[in-house]
Amino acid sequence: MFFLVCFDIVDNKTRYRVVKTLKGYGTRVQKSVFECANMTEHKFMKMKSDLEDLIDHGEDTIRYYPLCRSCVRNVEFSGIGMLPYVKPFAVL
Amino acid sequence: MFFLVCFDIVDNKTRYRVVKTLKGYGTRVQKSVFECANMTEHKFMKMKSDLEDLIDHGEDTIRYYPLCRSCVRNVEFSGIGMLPYVKPFAVL
Repeated sequence: MFFLVCFDIVDNKTRYRVVKTLKGYGTRVQKSVFECANMTEHKFMKMKSDLEDLIDHGEDTIRYYPLCRSCVRNVEFSGIGMLPYVKPFAVL
Repeated sequence: MFFLVCFDIVDNKTRYRVVKTLKGYGTRVQKSVFECANMTEHKFMKMKSDLEDLIDHGEDTIRYYPLCRSCVRNVEFSGIGMLPYVKPFAVL
């Protein structure tokens, strides 16, 4: 599973912790946007739970967008950047 | 078609113009994130072209994530916010 995670966090310290947590799950593609490839349902639930322990639920916001393989293939960008990297399937 | 558009724009004036342009296509869900529902291929190409005319291609970045109906249905969030609004199909 591929998840795009973006956030608006008011407090600097909280934002730092959110970024630190997300670095354990994916790649930062913009200041407040991470691409988390090769996630499992369990990993996603753990990430979401970790993040929910950090944020202020009355003023912060984190959004999680799942992208299927077909959606990931059609990601585009303008300006600087790279397309999402998704580990190819292993043939066993 | 549903597109998630997120941006990192260095110059304040450029960012203002990018936000103004995106407001014509979708809903701002975070400081640098718009959800653009009910887009056509033509509308997307026009939006991307308008944005590319505004940005500095050496330092700015805009990313476009297409989400199919199934992906849109599975969007989640923590903290403040709302789920994406997608106009239901009309039965004719």
